[in-house]
Amino acid sequence: MTAKFIVIEGLEGAGKSTAIALCQQFLTSQQIEFINVREPGGTPLAESLRDIVKAEHQESVASETELLLMYAARSQLVHNIIRPALAKGKWVLGDRHDLSSQAYQGGGRGIDRTTLQTLSAMVLKGLQPDLTIYLDIDPVIGLARAKGRGTLDRIEQEAVSFFERTRARYLELAESDERIKTVNANQDIAAVHRDITQVLEYFFQGLN
Amino acid sequence: MTAKFIVIEGLEGAGKSTAIALCQQFLTSQQIEFINVREPGGTPLAESLRDIVKAEHQESVASETELLLMYAARSQLVHNIIRPALAKGKWVLGDRHDLSSQAYQGGGRGIDRTTLQTLSAMVLKGLQPDLTIYLDIDPVIGLARAKGRGTLDRIEQEAVSFFERTRARYLELAESDERIKTVNANQDIAAVHRDITQVLEYFFQGLN
Repeated sequence: MTAKFIVIEGLEGAGKSTAIALCQQFLTSQQIEFINVREPGGTPLAESLRDIVKAEHQESVASETELLLMYAARSQLVHNIIRPALAKGKWVLGDRHDLSSQAYQGGGRGIDRTTLQTLSAMVLKGLQPDLTIYLDIDPVIGLARAKGRGTLDRIEQEAVSFFERTRARYLELAESDERIKTVNANQDIAAVHRDITQVLEYFFQGLN
Repeated sequence: MTAKFIVIEGLEGAGKSTAIALCQQFLTSQQIEFINVREPGGTPLAESLRDIVKAEHQESVASETELLLMYAARSQLVHNIIRPALAKGKWVLGDRHDLSSQAYQGGGRGIDRTTLQTLSAMVLKGLQPDLTIYLDIDPVIGLARAKGRGTLDRIEQEAVSFFERTRARYLELAESDERIKTVNANQDIAAVHRDITQVLEYFFQGLN
């Protein structure tokens, strides 16, 4: 079986870390070798861009700058980590990927779709996740959870309307791509776990 | 008179610093208020990207990453420094600008023109220098001069063929845009000074 690329997506506080832990357990139980990556980040250069993009700055950060830094970080991760891992037969489990840029910078910040498609094509050159699990959550609930964990970063401090636009784009893109599975993350944790496990089981059945 | 944006361009060792000093003298003699900017850089965030793009890294830096970082830095500079200065009636004197990306990342690295145009349009939104002085130099001569100044950065360490492709693209673009004036920087310094001064005088005559 060729190695697969699985991504977990969703707003702040949607439960991505828990979902990733669940996927890790699932992959391990299937005796699959995999690596974990997170975006933005995942290489030393990309992590330094993550720090820049999340930090608060004395100067205003243009939407275009944020977008370009996200893709610069993704470019390093794809070239240096994701493609080599997949080529060696290792699965890749990602905490966010291209869909985050489509949702946050496209939906949230209003960057046009043509620009996003050009950047995406340039950096990914056809790479796409085999499975994306999108954890859909009401931004008000998600942000309350994220605040409970500690200080919010520059992007997490945006108004609720920003996250509502981001969520709307996530839902729209998930609707139009069958490789993106939406899980209702507003449910209690047991129900979310059950739904994620079902998505993974269904995905594995399709591989056999 | 509305404020103008003047840019000095050229390969490493072409004599950009000397040309900038000459332009500064010229603008001062005309009692013009101006600011100096350099690319990549010019804001704290953009300068941190300059450090990243020029540093040597343990990981390989993809051509696309380099391109995206150049435009991210340019985005900050244009939004936060260049446009506000011009709006206040201050001229802007730039050490490199968009033409460097067209020449180095387009010509040198082989990034396609459509991608460059998309990034350029997204970041500049129609901003373009009123005058660009391109100092044309044989890369072998330029690199010898640059080496004489000290250690070369990551990009300066490229092979001569990289700079030949970069120079060819500079020449091609200068040929097709009358706002770009080519000065033969292979000449002795007095002749180069004379030619730059002529370009500036001609530019000022056109403004009156």
